[in-house]
This record gives sequence, structure tokens and C-alpha cells, in this order.
Amino acid sequence: MGRTMRAYRLGAWLAEPGFAEVPVPEPGPGEVLVRVAGCGLCHSDLAMQGITADVGRALGWRAPFTLGHETAGHVAATGRGVYGVAEGDAVAVVSPASCGSCRFCARGLDSVCTERPYGRGYGRDGGLAEYVLVDDARALVRLAPGMDPVTAGPYTDAGATSYHAVKRVLPRVPDGGTAVVIGVGGLGGFAVQFLRLLTGARVVAVDTDPDALARARDLGAHETIVGGRGVARAVRALTGHGADAVLDFVGADATLRAGVGSVAPGGAFGLVGAGGGTYDRPWFGGLPKDAEIFTFQGSSVSDLREVLALAASGELRNDVALYPFAETPTAYAALRTGALTGRAVVSLS
Amino acid sequence: MGRTMRAYRLGAWLAEPGFAEVPVPEPGPGEVLVRVAGCGLCHSDLAMQGITADVGRALGWRAPFTLGHETAGHVAATGRGVYGVAEGDAVAVVSPASCGSCRFCARGLDSVCTERPYGRGYGRDGGLAEYVLVDDARALVRLAPGMDPVTAGPYTDAGATSYHAVKRVLPRVPDGGTAVVIGVGGLGGFAVQFLRLLTGARVVAVDTDPDALARARDLGAHETIVGGRGVARAVRALTGHGADAVLDFVGADATLRAGVGSVAPGGAFGLVGAGGGTYDRPWFGGLPKDAEIFTFQGSSVSDLREVLALAASGELRNDVALYPFAETPTAYAALRTGALTGRAVVSLS
Amino acid sequence: MGRTMRAYRLGAWLAEPGFAEVPVPEPGPGEVLVRVAGCGLCHSDLAMQGITADVGRALGWRAPFTLGHETAGHVAATGRGVYGVAEGDAVAVVSPASCGSCRFCARGLDSVCTERPYGRGYGRDGGLAEYVLVDDARALVRLAPGMDPVTAGPYTDAGATSYHAVKRVLPRVPDGGTAVVIGVGGLGGFAVQFLRLLTGARVVAVDTDPDALARARDLGAHETIVGGRGVARAVRALTGHGADAVLDFVGADATLRAGVGSVAPGGAFGLVGAGGGTYDRPWFGGLPKDAEIFTFQGSSVSDLREVLALAASGELRNDVALYPFAETPTAYAALRTGALTGRAVVSLS
Amino acid sequence: MGRTMRAYRLGAWLAEPGFAEVPVPEPGPGEVLVRVAGCGLCHSDLAMQGITADVGRALGWRAPFTLGHETAGHVAATGRGVYGVAEGDAVAVVSPASCGSCRFCARGLDSVCTERPYGRGYGRDGGLAEYVLVDDARALVRLAPGMDPVTAGPYTDAGATSYHAVKRVLPRVPDGGTAVVIGVGGLGGFAVQFLRLLTGARVVAVDTDPDALARARDLGAHETIVGGRGVARAVRALTGHGADAVLDFVGADATLRAGVGSVAPGGAFGLVGAGGGTYDRPWFGGLPKDAEIFTFQGSSVSDLREVLALAASGELRNDVALYPFAETPTAYAALRTGALTGRAVVSLS
Repeated sequence: MGRTMRAYRLGAWLAEPGFAEVPVPEPGPGEVLVRVAGCGLCHSDLAMQGITADVGRALGWRAPFTLGHETAGHVAATGRGVYGVAEGDAVAVVSPASCGSCRFCARGLDSVCTERPYGRGYGRDGGLAEYVLVDDARALVRLAPGMDPVTAGPYTDAGATSYHAVKRVLPRVPDGGTAVVIGVGGLGGFAVQFLRLLTGARVVAVDTDPDALARARDLGAHETIVGGRGVARAVRALTGHGADAVLDFVGADATLRAGVGSVAPGGAFGLVGAGGGTYDRPWFGGLPKDAEIFTFQGSSVSDLREVLALAASGELRNDVALYPFAETPTAYAALRTGALTGRAVVSLS
Repeated sequence: MGRTMRAYRLGAWLAEPGFAEVPVPEPGPGEVLVRVAGCGLCHSDLAMQGITADVGRALGWRAPFTLGHETAGHVAATGRGVYGVAEGDAVAVVSPASCGSCRFCARGLDSVCTERPYGRGYGRDGGLAEYVLVDDARALVRLAPGMDPVTAGPYTDAGATSYHAVKRVLPRVPDGGTAVVIGVGGLGGFAVQFLRLLTGARVVAVDTDPDALARARDLGAHETIVGGRGVARAVRALTGHGADAVLDFVGADATLRAGVGSVAPGGAFGLVGAGGGTYDRPWFGGLPKDAEIFTFQGSSVSDLREVLALAASGELRNDVALYPFAETPTAYAALRTGALTGRAVVSLS
Repeated sequence: MGRTMRAYRLGAWLAEPGFAEVPVPEPGPGEVLVRVAGCGLCHSDLAMQGITADVGRALGWRAPFTLGHETAGHVAATGRGVYGVAEGDAVAVVSPASCGSCRFCARGLDSVCTERPYGRGYGRDGGLAEYVLVDDARALVRLAPGMDPVTAGPYTDAGATSYHAVKRVLPRVPDGGTAVVIGVGGLGGFAVQFLRLLTGARVVAVDTDPDALARARDLGAHETIVGGRGVARAVRALTGHGADAVLDFVGADATLRAGVGSVAPGGAFGLVGAGGGTYDRPWFGGLPKDAEIFTFQGSSVSDLREVLALAASGELRNDVALYPFAETPTAYAALRTGALTGRAVVSLS
Repeated sequence: MGRTMRAYRLGAWLAEPGFAEVPVPEPGPGEVLVRVAGCGLCHSDLAMQGITADVGRALGWRAPFTLGHETAGHVAATGRGVYGVAEGDAVAVVSPASCGSCRFCARGLDSVCTERPYGRGYGRDGGLAEYVLVDDARALVRLAPGMDPVTAGPYTDAGATSYHAVKRVLPRVPDGGTAVVIGVGGLGGFAVQFLRLLTGARVVAVDTDPDALARARDLGAHETIVGGRGVARAVRALTGHGADAVLDFVGADATLRAGVGSVAPGGAFGLVGAGGGTYDRPWFGGLPKDAEIFTFQGSSVSDLREVLALAASGELRNDVALYPFAETPTAYAALRTGALTGRAVVSLS
């Protein structure tokens, strides 16, 4: 009750985040206390520092709160009425929140649950602390034996969000077809791997950075294209009809236009990157015929379960740069400057 | 705490059920107490009276318990940490149990949840009492304004189970195709209606009882066939290739064989009826090519939500024979003798 | 042979269409000659008159050609190697062309076939003539006994295109959900009917014309909204989360924005109308989360088969204004001025 | 023409097959003459020798006919009105026949086409000859550059049939799930590979022959189980709930029962092997809840296209034992005695 712990927090709207000493939460009925082993850092954490009080209120967030939405660790204590997990279990924490019973959740579409729209680390206490409180055992997935919770955090957001996008396009990608990944950072790197593991399609990576393209090849991409004006033309030269699926992890005007222009009739274009891009041409005649366009930011509990299962099989590469908890500010600085190839993860164990 | 209520219970394995005075349950954390308005009676209630102690134990059931798994009413009280429903809400109680977080539930497949396999009224206290305790708000669906909870119970099992089967075959039924319903009792009557509401297929009803066939026509069946040896031949005479879907709500040797023999290549045969039928021919060459065969007993939370939405739209006929609570034994007797055309429902309001 | 027939033709690029005497075609191997009974007129016929020689050539079209792509009639003669249809059969002619063997056609996605992109009446001889030549029996669907080929033409384009859009959104529309149709003309009127026949959703019609809204109600729409600024707000007021599907048969800037703004998370927006609208907001944050956006103009052979099956069942209303062949110019004039409520169909029988 | 060629034929019902000199066919309108490079031999060829005249007539077959339904080669000549392939193209011949325009074909379900039920080598002239006549260019798929037509034949039947079964179960196999292949011969060996290429599931191979299990591991199976009484128990020990998919390439009583008993709720059991097995227990309570059971023998044109695309990518192993045409009887003898690990293929080039 009186125990406290260190947490890395956004202390107020528009303030710089920093360390603070806060009480260790106590799990109430149905709740689970997780001792954090590691927590991944995400570009969206940086964006949160620019949120004004008005926007925060509109979102239903409250400040201060502890950052961190890519969390894994061990169950430290459970409230009354919790089952499915027990003290000591190694677990990953589902990154988005969902209610489990609305019309969306009931159909397995919890990534668009509108009842509990924000996960831990988004306007409520997240994983950059010794402990994080999880309000529903639904939000915990047990790790397979041998999987290290220190580095498992990135599967919960970078991995699961990318997986959600890849799963969605699978029905449109025949074997022998083509899938394009635009932007080979943390999410895009996972997408290249998922497409190789789950399809018989040719995987094409697009990036403006030659190092990213080299990494894409390393992760299994069959072809690479240097980002820029000629992307759609290059994709058509490779494929004839265009690509059966394009996933855009950048989302700028240029990638959005290149991506839409690369899609085959009946294909899919998925916008994952929050680059704020627009598409200024008429949709009729501009968007590929009978193709599917979609945007999202989330993932479902089921997505995370499947990502962790793929990881447990040893077939998924998860490049991380590990930092001790005390060096969280250094890790965020490296993330901000783009100096990292893998995902920055803070170790708390 | 000290309050008691009347309940209609299976007092011991292999005993006749009867009324008893039992405590009114108190909702703990996450639980909801529902004041029952009406509860439907089901053939499976009758079967439960034949369960031995050994089988009961093997199933994980305990005796005594209150019967009734088609329940609707009003929220009377909520435990701590319940949200989504409030005191006074008119609700239907989901008939099967499910955990909400296992690998099946996470994908919206909670009808095959293996973590909490039994619903209220199956080896634990059900709805034939003034109150029923519901252990998770996920198991409650609010009724649309104007829908009467006294008669809503049959939607939760007869309706939702039938709907689950119909939904499953929809992708195999093109408009202009044919769907066959074998056995037009409570579930089959709903199936005829769902097929008419949700497909552009010709609906064919099969039953040995001319009254049931008349009722099927009344509910929208385009064609009827008198059950017996010639069913598969008659279906082929109507369709040429066979039916795109056959749902067998009887499940005897004869209906199973007639049903399988009626299915077109690439079609579906769904076995819902627990008639214990077998199929004694080789599957290869016997089952229709590329067709789908499936069996089940359940339904998902999402199924019930959709059934209730159809009912709220006024397009679903729900034939019930209403009995006062005190006449529950009479109602079961009528069910046993097959004297009823609609569903027997006990009113507790 | 030496025989000639009257045809209503686009005699040259940018010319007014008119009657001409042309040879009756002779069916070669695999080809079928159809005696036209009736042919529907379409707004796209009017647009063809504005096509320049350059654009025509780019499309692979040739002038002169006979107009008309909503054709039904009777098989008059078959070439060698034709099977599946015989002389005298009443048939509808599939409106789009497709090859039957490319990677799209092989998967039943012939509406995006890129091998034979144009159907009869689009840059090659269509149905506004005594006879039309069909180059593949795949492009003919036999009419059910009792169906009149004089008025069946509109099913092949207005009906099948609308059906294609409705079929696509079905998986996203749960019973009790909401589907919105923007623009209740020929195609939209069919969409309202298909949604009523094939879903348990509430159907909402949007149009700026009160007469169109009255017709929508008549065809089964549950709710109507007068087109304009407040459409998205009105849809949200009706639904809470937004509509599970929106089909836009107008496609102007305003309808596109209203439509996208009306879609629920995980829903679908289908653009059918060629109004040339654009969407000027950022897609990320603007398009509904996890929803599906698609555009198209076509339909598959399978779509037409299913539409004709629904029509044969007597459940589909096909409002037509019938004109004798000689009054084809009058019929086009009425179409141009918007004076018609149903589809203009020219009778050649 | 007068030209003749050698062919390996079933000369009469119940006769031993042998070589004969027959005319080289002439391609009529829409037809294509293929010069055979190689043709795979299949167990079903052996079974055909036991067909009586009555059964043959009932099937619509005629004797004599040339054997061989796993054919690839080069286009030698095309009839009038053929497009999509040209003289000299290397092609594989689709093994099953289909019409391309019936209600099944129109939906991409040509594997259950009932209009042209038999492919070349089944009661009409197949590929064990210098030339084979193909009556529709739909039945030809061009080989990617570098792919050898001599050994490509097995993809058309062993490969495509296995692929058809694997594709069907994919939606039921989550990553981290389990898929079981019973019987690792020609088809089963392909199935192990397809499951590894297209899923993130654990692949389990079952066979009574230790050499087959070694080969399965070699092809990518994660686990192997020796066939026999304990198979279902072993699968449950590995998985808990059972396997998400089981494909039975044997189809005997024992494998059928073991397979059905191994399937998880909501999973799939696919019967491919023609072993004539029956299932003697009641379906209700015996078949796994909400699971899918299906049988088939075929594949679609689209399946073959995708198999050939996977093969072109170099990721598919196709073990063949090559024989010169003159040694066709020797090759069949080896097939009959089970002496082969790969597929017997006769080279005609």
C-alpha cells in the first residue's frame, strides 16, 4: 500500500517527460499487477509530448501518466476473480484497450472497440515503471517457455499492428502474386517477415534509405525499390498488373500516391503510417478497380496471440537496442534522431 | 442475504425436478443479478433428468441446480466493476458460457470456448427462478425498447443456435440456390425464417408431420417435402445438382443420410439435431465433393446480438405457449408429449 | 451474309448517334447470335458521345459501333463448338467482357479481367439492333421460364453492378446494423432492394430529390435522409457508431465526404457513381479505422446469374419505361432530362 | 493428316494397358495441340484398369483411351479463335476438366464443375503420347521461364489436389496452431510443404512408414507421429485442444477415425485419400464441435496457377523418378510395388 516505485511519466500536458516516484498500484477485483521486465519505446510516445490539455481532455486522457505501451513482464499479484493467469507467469500486455463485450469485440474485432479506446501508456499509466496495473486478464497473453519478457514488448504494438495489416490483405494475395511494403522501419520490418512467412508472394520493399533496403533484403524481401517518383512505375514493371497488396508504413502524400498507384485491380492498399498524407485525385478512375483501401492503428488480442506464437517458433527476428531503465531519456533521444535500426527497449529486470 | 426465492430445480442426479426455496444470490465483483421475466423450456432440460452422478461429475456439473437456459429479465443489482449494463435494463442472458479471452473467444468463436463450457441451467443455476446470477456482463445483451423480456428467452438458445447454423452456411448459398431445413420444430422454424431473411435462395422444408410443413410454409418456406425415403431424390428433382445447404435439426440415421445425399458439390450439411444418427457409407464418394459437413450445439454472443436485432426489427416470428411459473411441470409435460407448436415459456413477471 | 438489319449506332467519334443499316453478323466458332428482344439505355451511353478519337483509340475502342449494353433476347444461331445454350433459348447478355481464363477470371473475379476489358456496346457492337453477336457462351445466362427478355436488360448492368457492390459489403453488415444508399436512381433502387433481401440491417436512403426518397421507401428503405450538409450527422444520430456500409451511387465531392464520414469503424464505403469526387482530407484519421473503401464499375458473370435468380423468384422490382425501337432517340432524350423514374428500355420484339 | 504417334493406352475395359499407334489429333476451333514433354503417373491410373464396361459407360468414359493426367509440354499448334497461348509456349495442362461457365465455374469453384466432369486421361485421351489435344486454352497454364516441362506434370494433379486441400483449411489455422498431415506420399509431401510455406502453424506428419516420416521432416514437418492406434492421443498431447486442421491422404477406417478424433473444436478435417474408410460413430458428439469435414478429389485452374507460381519461386521440392517413354510399363510396376519415394514421371522429350 505505502510502497512506491519509479516511473517515467508525462508530468503535465506539453511538459518534458521524466522520472517520478509513484505508488505501486494494488490490483482490485478482476485486475492484475504485472512486474515489468521490459518496455519498448515508440514514435507515438514522442508525439504525445505535443498534446495540449484541450486535446488530451477531448481524447479522454488524463495527465500525469506513465508512458510505455509495449510491455512484458511477470504477474506479481492478482485481484479477486482473476483466472487464466497466475502469479509468476511471464506475460505480454496487449497494447490497445478493448471492452470484450461490445458489438465489435463480440465478433473478434476488438481493434475497433469504441468502449475502451485507449490502452496503457496512452493517457493512463503504462509500462515504463516497475509495475503496471492491467484491468482485465483478457489483456494478458502468456509467453511460451523460453521467451524473454525483457525484449518481448515490441511484439505487442510494432509486431501486432503490422500483423493486423498483413492478415487483412492475405485473402487478396494469391501465391505467385506480389506484396509491397513501403517504409522498412520497426513495423515495416515485421511486415516483410510476416508476408514471407504467410504467403507465397514476391515481397517488394520500398524505402528512400539504402540501409533500410539492405535490412529488408536481410529480412527476406525478394526485391527492393528506392523510394521516390518512379515507385508505381517500377512496381508495374515488375508485376504487369500491379501489386496484389501494398502496405504503406509512412503515409505521406508521396507514399500514399505511389502506393495507390501500384495496386492491381482487386488488390489492397493499407495505410498504417500516420504521415498525414492526402490523395488529391478523383477516387473514381483513380483508385484501382474493385480494390480495397483501408487505414488503421490497432490490433486485436488475437493478433498478438498469433504474433507471439510465430515468435515462439523462432521464425521471427526482433531487432532491439536494449537500454537500462535509468537511460530511458537517452533511448528516446536515439529514437528521435533516427539513429536506431531496431526497436529501442528499456529493460527493467 | 437472508432472502430466499422459489426455483425449479433438479434436486439430485436422476431425480424428478421440482420446486425448492433457495437463497437469492448476491452479485460479487463483476457479477450481475437478473430478475427473471421469462424462461423458455427446452428438450435438453428433459434429457438432463437422465444424467447419472458419474456423467454429471465428468461434465463438471454439480447437483442440485436450477433448470432453465433461455432467460430474459431485468438487471436487479450489479457487483463492483460491472459496466455496460445498469439496474433496470431489460436484458437477455446469453445461453452458452464462454471465457472471453481464450484463443477461440479472442477470434469471436466463443461458441467453442473450452474454458467455461457450461451455461446457466446446465449443471449450475439457471433461469427458472425469480433471480439468476450472471458472472460476467459479457453474457447480457440489452433488449431494444419495446421488446418484451417475458417471451425473449427462446431467442437465446432456439433462436441463436439456429442462427449460428444458418450464418455458417450463408457463404455457400448463392442467390437462386436452394437451402433445405429438415425438422421444423422450434429451431427449424427459426432457420426457415433466417434463410428467408438473409438469402435469396429457395427454402425447402422437410418434416414427417404435415402440420409442421404447414407451419413451415407459413413461416416462409417456398417448398415442402414429406420426410421419408424419397427426400434426397425429391431435392434433386427440384434442384438438379442438389441443395447448396441442408440443415438437419433431427439428426437421426435417416435424416442424416437424406441430408448428406441432398447436398450439391461445394455445398454444406449442418447437423444440429442430437438424434444420434450415424452415416455408414464410405466418406470418399459418399459425401458430396468439396462440400462442408459440420456439427454443433452452440452459438456465440455475437449470434444472439444479431438475432435480437432481427427480432427488434419485427421481422421474426417467435411462437410461444406461455405458462405461469407455478405450472412449470405442466409446461414440461406438454413439451414432452409434443403437444406444442411453439416454444414453451414460463412467465415469472 | 447478305442480310442486313437496323442498328442504333455511334457513327463516328463525337458524332450524334443514329440509325444505320448494317449486316447481320454470322456466328463463327464458339460464337452465338442473339436476336435482341429488349435493350436498356444507360447514362454511360450518353457519355460515350463525348469520347474523342484519341481517347477512343487509347481505350481500344473502334468507331462506328452499335450502342447498348443491357441486352436480352433469344439465341438465333450458334457457331461450331458452342454448348450450354441452344437456338430459341431466352438469354440475358453479360454486360462486361471477360476472358474466362486469366488470373482474375480463374478466381471468379472476372469483373476486373484485364484481358478483354470492354463489353458489347462499349466500342464494339452492342444490343441496340435486331441481332447482337456474342463471342463466348460464357457471356449468356439463360432466363428462367416466364421471365420476359424484353425487360430483362437492366438486370445485366444496373442490376448486376449494384449487386456486385452490395455483395461486397455483406460481410461487414451484421444483422441489426445499418446500410446507407446514397442516390436512389436505377442502381441505387436496386441496391435498396438487395440490401433488404440479403441482410437484416436497417436500410437508409439518401437523396436530394424527395420523389427519389419516396421511391426508396416504396422499395423497402426503413429510413430516408434528405441529401446535403447534415448527412453524416444524421447517420450518426441514427446509429451511434456510424453505418456498417455506405454505397455512394453519385460520387460527387459532397456525397463522397458525407459517405466516408458516415461509416462506422470496421465498416465499408463503396463508390459506384462516376461523379468524379475527391476527398481532400488526410486519410489517416479521416477514413474510419479498419474500414474498407473501394471503387468499381463492373460485375461478374456470377453476379448476373444471382441477380437473375432473384428476379425469377419474383422478389425484385424492375421499373422500366418501355419504348419502341424506332423511338430510341426519344428514350435517350428522356434519360438525358432526368424525366424517368425507372430504366428506359427499348423493345425490339 | 495421316501422321501417327505412339501412345500408352487402355485398349479396352479390364485389359492391360499398352502401347499403340494412333493418329496425331488436329486442333479444331478453340483447341490446342500440345507436344508432351513429360507426364506423371498416378495410382488412379492403376485403378482405371479395373473399371468394367458398365461402370465406364456410367461415368461417361469411352475405351480405348490414352492414359496420363499429369502433363506438361509445348504448344505445337492452335486452332482458330485460340488466344492466350501461342506455338512454342511451355505449358502445363490442367488435370481436371471444367466448362468455364456453369454456376460453379463462374464463382471460381471449377473443381466441382458438373458439366465436363472428366479431364484428359480419364476416359478420354491423356498425356502418355507424343501429343495431347486440349479443347480449351483455359486448361493451359504457361510455365515461368526456366521451369522444365519434363518434370512439371506432378504439379497438375499431385500438387494441385494437395494445394486445394491446404488452401481450404487455411482460414481455420491460426499462427501458432497445428496442422496434421496423415500419409506422406506424393500428395502428402506437397501438403507438408504448402503448410510450411503458407502458415505459421506447427506441422505434424503421421505415417506408418519411418522412411516417409524422415522424408516429412526433410520437407519441413516440425513433428512426426508413427501411425497406429495412438495418433489422436498423441496429437492431443502435443496440442491440448487438438489440431486446427487434419488432412488425411490415406482415407482408411483407421486414419479417418484418428483424424476426426484429432481435430480441435472449430477446426477442419479434410479427406483426400480414396481409401474407402467409414466412420461408424454417431456424428453428434463424435465429430468435433463447429469443425468442418470435407472430401474431394480435384483442384481448380486457379489452384494450379498458384502451385506453379510457388514452384517458379524455387521454394517447392518436386521429387521425381524419371523414366523414358518406352519404359512406361516399368514405371507403373515401380509405382504399383510402392518402391518409389518421389513421383514417377515419363519423359517424352
